[in-house]
Amino acid sequence: MDIDRIRAAAARLNGTLRATPLLSSPFLDEIAGRRVLVKPECLQHTGSFKYRGASAALSALAPEMRARGVLAYSSGNHAQGVALAAREAGVPAVIVMPRDAPEVKIENTRGLGAEVILYDRATDDRDAIGAELATSRALTLVRPFDDPEVIAGQGTTGLEIAAEARALGIDEAEVIVCCGGGGLAAGIALALEADAPRYRVRTAEPTAFDDVRRSLAAGRITGHGATGTGLCDAILTPQPGDLTFPVLQRLAGPGLAVDDDEVLRAMAVAWDRLKVVAEPGGAVALAAALFRADEIAAETVIVTISGGNVDPGVFARALDFAGS
Amino acid sequence: MDIDRIRAAAARLNGTLRATPLLSSPFLDEIAGRRVLVKPECLQHTGSFKYRGASAALSALAPEMRARGVLAYSSGNHAQGVALAAREAGVPAVIVMPRDAPEVKIENTRGLGAEVILYDRATDDRDAIGAELATSRALTLVRPFDDPEVIAGQGTTGLEIAAEARALGIDEAEVIVCCGGGGLAAGIALALEADAPRYRVRTAEPTAFDDVRRSLAAGRITGHGATGTGLCDAILTPQPGDLTFPVLQRLAGPGLAVDDDEVLRAMAVAWDRLKVVAEPGGAVALAAALFRADEIAAETVIVTISGGNVDPGVFARALDFAGS
Repeated sequence: MDIDRIRAAAARLNGTLRATPLLSSPFLDEIAGRRVLVKPECLQHTGSFKYRGASAALSALAPEMRARGVLAYSSGNHAQGVALAAREAGVPAVIVMPRDAPEVKIENTRGLGAEVILYDRATDDRDAIGAELATSRALTLVRPFDDPEVIAGQGTTGLEIAAEARALGIDEAEVIVCCGGGGLAAGIALALEADAPRYRVRTAEPTAFDDVRRSLAAGRITGHGATGTGLCDAILTPQPGDLTFPVLQRLAGPGLAVDDDEVLRAMAVAWDRLKVVAEPGGAVALAAALFRADEIAAETVIVTISGGNVDPGVFARALDFAGS
Repeated sequence: MDIDRIRAAAARLNGTLRATPLLSSPFLDEIAGRRVLVKPECLQHTGSFKYRGASAALSALAPEMRARGVLAYSSGNHAQGVALAAREAGVPAVIVMPRDAPEVKIENTRGLGAEVILYDRATDDRDAIGAELATSRALTLVRPFDDPEVIAGQGTTGLEIAAEARALGIDEAEVIVCCGGGGLAAGIALALEADAPRYRVRTAEPTAFDDVRRSLAAGRITGHGATGTGLCDAILTPQPGDLTFPVLQRLAGPGLAVDDDEVLRAMAVAWDRLKVVAEPGGAVALAAALFRADEIAAETVIVTISGGNVDPGVFARALDFAGS
């Protein structure tokens, strides 16, 4: 992985990606006790940064692979990102989703033109279904994070952050990134190393699923040991990726983690003060900036809101914190 | 009013205003039956376009007037826009607000550094209070819409729309603008006349408060005849302005109007598909694009979301429409 691949992705995708603006509010600065800038990837096409990586991966494929089509496993943001990127590129897309995924997510993925194949989590072997599809139909798998082109696509977020924040005169910053498998964090870290070397990435996770924080502290890939699901469903990966972790180990500061109540409060602040919709997993970085200020040193903190795909019922829980 | 004043405001405010991106979603296009682009001024500083006009007016004042300070009457978005613009310019600001305005709006205005003077709607004469203040403290009144510099500031929105939409290859469009007193609509119309003459402004209002639609149809300034308040509180002006109406009469197409249920559904669509927060008055243009498609002719419609300052309880009513 290097900066050239990120720059190449940005050049290929110029005009395709939405360049999201840096948002701010004096009310956020007051809560955090420092300047806060927010990169709202919830405003990206399909409502999350995943569209960047999917578009980068698809545009890097050889023409014969594009003609045959792509395959992805996902119940959420990656599915929608791949579906839209594929439709725009004229590439057939097959998304393998669990049968118990929210109906709206299945419908959205179909609505973006993908063929959805459902499996039963209890009785089916997802990987076997995928492998059979990949072989019989010669589909190319688009991984959610541990793929150089996907990381390069997510890294275009970092190129924008560097350009936008440096235009504001910011020389030093901590850049807090919502972290599941680490594709967005690793991509941003590589982009900042090249374009804004005094900006340092910090990862943010839910406290109960803090595999990246643990891995960074241990100096090796470590799981979080939790089972089941949680509020921040989009970023509950069991451990960082083989490609993403070495990048984070080299470039990122200590990991941050936040509780569910802090996540819901951050969603309310984003709604109230920035007028954007954050999903729980997309709000962990903002929550860390606002409510874990004593673990941050820089005068300026830049946070990602990585996505905004959230059920109305969960969002209503966050609204209960508005004004509090 | 001419384009030079708008260009001068844009030049003065370069780096101060947030250039909001044009948003889109294939799901919006599907509902509307045409291409829909959305200009989310809810993402502007203070959560509405009002900051543009306030900044333009303040930056146009002579130094001695800035030193003495400014005065505004407002219970909402104009108050916050003037307060922040004044603080940033180092200008004292006095905002006269009704005592029964929502506490959060009073606190926000104070939080942005303005001096707030409360009056009783039943027993006090607001204009007398303002006139006394203006005389005794030599404050300059910043009007909410019927002021050339305010209209010029709102017109910077139109310059951005023209540049952004033309970069997408759009030659013709109807541009639907949420309309209270008409400052935003008139400013955008003047900017488009100069920079994108094949884009035509259409105003959008609530059906029960459609003074601009009636005035455009009658060819003269006409009130809507309604009394009381409504869901779209931010845009319930009794009639268009003396400066704004002639501009709209010359440049805008027939007015559009929408019902409250359509407004709430549009707020839900903006939340679900664009991940932005629209207040009711800020959602009327999107509602018209989505649900009054038979009154629109162009292949591409561009809509403003003029603001996002909404109470949690009202927003929860909109969320009930999500997914429906």
